[in-house]
Amino acid sequence: VWDMAKSRFEYVRKFEQDDRLLHDTWIVIRIDGRGFHKFSSEHAFSKPNDARALGLMNKSAECVMQTFPDIILAYGQSDEFSFILKKETTLFRRRASKIMTTVVSCFTANYLFHWRDFFGEISLLYPPSFDGRAVLYPNESVLKDYLRWRQADCHINNLYNTCFWCLVDSGLTNDAAEERLSGTQSSDKNEILFSEFNINYNELPEIFRKGTTLIRQEVEESVTKLCKAKKEEGLSERLVQRKRKVVTAFHTDIIGEAFWSEHSKILDL
Amino acid sequence: VWDMAKSRFEYVRKFEQDDRLLHDTWIVIRIDGRGFHKFSSEHAFSKPNDARALGLMNKSAECVMQTFPDIILAYGQSDEFSFILKKETTLFRRRASKIMTTVVSCFTANYLFHWRDFFGEISLLYPPSFDGRAVLYPNESVLKDYLRWRQADCHINNLYNTCFWCLVDSGLTNDAAEERLSGTQSSDKNEILFSEFNINYNELPEIFRKGTTLIRQEVEESVTKLCKAKKEEGLSERLVQRKRKVVTAFHTDIIGEAFWSEHSKILDL
Amino acid sequence: VWDMAKSRFEYVRKFEQDDRLLHDTWIVIRIDGRGFHKFSSEHAFSKPNDARALGLMNKSAECVMQTFPDIILAYGQSDEFSFILKKETTLFRRRASKIMTTVVSCFTANYLFHWRDFFGEISLLYPPSFDGRAVLYPNESVLKDYLRWRQADCHINNLYNTCFWCLVDSGLTNDAAEERLSGTQSSDKNEILFSEFNINYNELPEIFRKGTTLIRQEVEESVTKLCKAKKEEGLSERLVQRKRKVVTAFHTDIIGEAFWSEHSKILDL
Amino acid sequence: VWDMAKSRFEYVRKFEQDDRLLHDTWIVIRIDGRGFHKFSSEHAFSKPNDARALGLMNKSAECVMQTFPDIILAYGQSDEFSFILKKETTLFRRRASKIMTTVVSCFTANYLFHWRDFFGEISLLYPPSFDGRAVLYPNESVLKDYLRWRQADCHINNLYNTCFWCLVDSGLTNDAAEERLSGTQSSDKNEILFSEFNINYNELPEIFRKGTTLIRQEVEESVTKLCKAKKEEGLSERLVQRKRKVVTAFHTDIIGEAFWSEHSKILDL
Repeated sequence: VWDMAKSRFEYVRKFEQDDRLLHDTWIVIRIDGRGFHKFSSEHAFSKPNDARALGLMNKSAECVMQTFPDIILAYGQSDEFSFILKKETTLFRRRASKIMTTVVSCFTANYLFHWRDFFGEISLLYPPSFDGRAVLYPNESVLKDYLRWRQADCHINNLYNTCFWCLVDSGLTNDAAEERLSGTQSSDKNEILFSEFNINYNELPEIFRKGTTLIRQEVEESVTKLCKAKKEEGLSERLVQRKRKVVTAFHTDIIGEAFWSEHSKILDL
Repeated sequence: VWDMAKSRFEYVRKFEQDDRLLHDTWIVIRIDGRGFHKFSSEHAFSKPNDARALGLMNKSAECVMQTFPDIILAYGQSDEFSFILKKETTLFRRRASKIMTTVVSCFTANYLFHWRDFFGEISLLYPPSFDGRAVLYPNESVLKDYLRWRQADCHINNLYNTCFWCLVDSGLTNDAAEERLSGTQSSDKNEILFSEFNINYNELPEIFRKGTTLIRQEVEESVTKLCKAKKEEGLSERLVQRKRKVVTAFHTDIIGEAFWSEHSKILDL
Repeated sequence: VWDMAKSRFEYVRKFEQDDRLLHDTWIVIRIDGRGFHKFSSEHAFSKPNDARALGLMNKSAECVMQTFPDIILAYGQSDEFSFILKKETTLFRRRASKIMTTVVSCFTANYLFHWRDFFGEISLLYPPSFDGRAVLYPNESVLKDYLRWRQADCHINNLYNTCFWCLVDSGLTNDAAEERLSGTQSSDKNEILFSEFNINYNELPEIFRKGTTLIRQEVEESVTKLCKAKKEEGLSERLVQRKRKVVTAFHTDIIGEAFWSEHSKILDL
Repeated sequence: VWDMAKSRFEYVRKFEQDDRLLHDTWIVIRIDGRGFHKFSSEHAFSKPNDARALGLMNKSAECVMQTFPDIILAYGQSDEFSFILKKETTLFRRRASKIMTTVVSCFTANYLFHWRDFFGEISLLYPPSFDGRAVLYPNESVLKDYLRWRQADCHINNLYNTCFWCLVDSGLTNDAAEERLSGTQSSDKNEILFSEFNINYNELPEIFRKGTTLIRQEVEESVTKLCKAKKEEGLSERLVQRKRKVVTAFHTDIIGEAFWSEHSKILDL
């Protein structure tokens, strides 16, 4: 009776829609922290940047890249991360839902799993979560512009936040700090930091100003292997050179051309 | 210069596609454990069913329902859970990506967050993850058939697994047990359980055989409130009756009509 | 070599996307004349309504219904027509592109094919065309509201146009007529027609005020058939009663409930 | 009351879905004759190719290109035509439904409108129609492969049909001709044509073997214009040179690179 029941109801699968993404096109999965404003203050993140929190974001992103070899690059800043899948990927037959939910779930799980490694005794008060989306970019030029857009966003937000928290630390209320910065250009904010707080913005850590770009780099390693030197003899240890791809982090400019010409093969592969 | 950079690259947002789901239609989000076969054996789950693991699944689903009031019902079994959003929901403007990634991330985060409450000292060896999908059901009849399909699936799998592990526990290899069950009907498996293992399948716990249905039920509570009895007097405690919706679990048949007529307002609300 | 060439390039089919429409949901195809403002003046259509042009629209729609038995109802006004496919239809496996392009092409072809039957010696100066779209409606209530929306639109436009052309015929310029009507309510326009032009709007032909609803109605016919009365005898004519579905036009109110209760089976079938 | 009715029902527009096509990607609209097997025999088209019918297809496609300046190339064979929109097009805000229905309707209307110019006194027995679809191609390489696929298809079908109709004309039944050709390679068919019918396939008209490619070519024209030579004088005629883009037909190979390097700017523009 159950066997029959199942086959009788199975027609409901027809209501699922095929959401395969256009072939030969880069797939970008961007995830974003949900309610991280509240989350970061309840867990007492340092302002404007918390090195532990950024470390945990980067670690989680690295684990996502470890899980999905078709991700060729990831760029993160603040509570967001973008993952670029190579344009030929056939991961999950390119089904949008499957790809984006798996990436977001994998990231979330790693964020909780590695929390202690970065925050030690500070315990999680409640579980943080992320949303995600998939966007297609059909050529290298628009794909790079996407990443440039995220880095320009990082820059603008970080400059603003740096100023904002300096003003607040110096005694202004949040509202007063906000008002002070309203309508200012980048140059004005640089000037405030320099003249009032003696901070040269460009000397602040690059991870804060430029975010984190993760790519796979080939490294050469020496590994000890057990080999038979000759047929008749026993095993002996030998040092062997080996090439391996390792996820590597950069906190560098990706808006100009330098990064892209140095790593020219990333997007092709 | 950064302000300009950002606006120069912002055109890449045009590549995002609008994925709003048809109005006035039930949205089902189904999430599934990824690689839970391996995950359950590495964490030594009892076979065929692990009460702690089911408890953790149900707890996570309940937290998802707590987070999203527009979820009117959830049904779970094994390593999967389906969440039904009321047909009028405007959650995230009905954007498919946003809804499904948020639900899957929220579930994942809760699964890790509450792990210790169910598994105590047994620690997580690696972070488990889930995938998700969104399916639309345009009328009550097909929506119920969807849930019936999942419960029929629960039944078939559970009966099979119960037999399989009895056979294995009795000394058969996995392959031999599989072969023994190949081609059998439900009635054959019931018979094997009864005659060889003295198990009456229908007396096994309902949570194993029927999965878990979560709905919101109105409960009446007595709460103590501080009130001013009269103007001139001070505060005094008073017992007040209050109605509240509470997520409640059922391990009951949802294939027949009884459950639906008892809870006839669930789908309308 | 050509055989090989074809199979080498055939991979490009993978770029086609599956666009099947949600099951168990009404599919509405609405087509609209492109540039019919210009088309109608170049072909000297009477204003505000041209009976020949409406006749040709209705004839074309009827032919579309003849071609696609799964269309259960069509509603037209001015230069637009909406076709409702029964909710269970599997026409072209419910592929949106295939359904909408075929309907719009079939309508267009019939419009040109039957032009002469309605416009006689007035020849087509250039070929008119239509666009189309597909919209899903998941329940009877919203589907009816869709049709009500189109009829309310018909009414508003027709009342406006009737006033406008009366004013223009009475000597106003187009601009002056437009200005005169700007900001007026339905009641104001009724009043203008009555007091200035002695026209009782509600006595104008229903086809102008209410558009055209086409449904399939069962009719009983007497057909003469050749039958063998008895084995040994020759053929003799006999009158036989037969039921047949015939596309029938109504110019009646579909906003109230009367039409729907009179034809209660249309949407079920 | 009508004004209110319309705004009350207008919510049904929410059920329309946004179907804008990915930016910066070539859009291909392919249209196909519906039931042209029957249509061509009822209108006595010559077999295997009817020059009038191909002329009418090409004329209709040319008119479509005249109507939509963003179409940069069209390729047709038998009863199908593919239209390539430039990748930057913003025609109808790139809405898939609007683009494909308009193209298919415009083509259909022209096919009927120009029928007489190609078939003279042979009148249309019933209105022919076409279906259409939209496919995206993200880079030049796959776009060209799409067109190569259609031309390889043209070649294979035409070779087969040429053989088939020779065999039928020589006295075979349709079934016998089909059987004779079943399992043959291109080379076999070439051989049959040559040895049995004295036909050198490669000498048949190119329009039959290679289909029709329409592109816009710049031509220089001399036009007579009325000009004022000097201020004080009257108008005088002057011959002026002018560049203009004209839709031009080629019946040439588009599988190799020659065509593409000769017309290297088509796809960029």
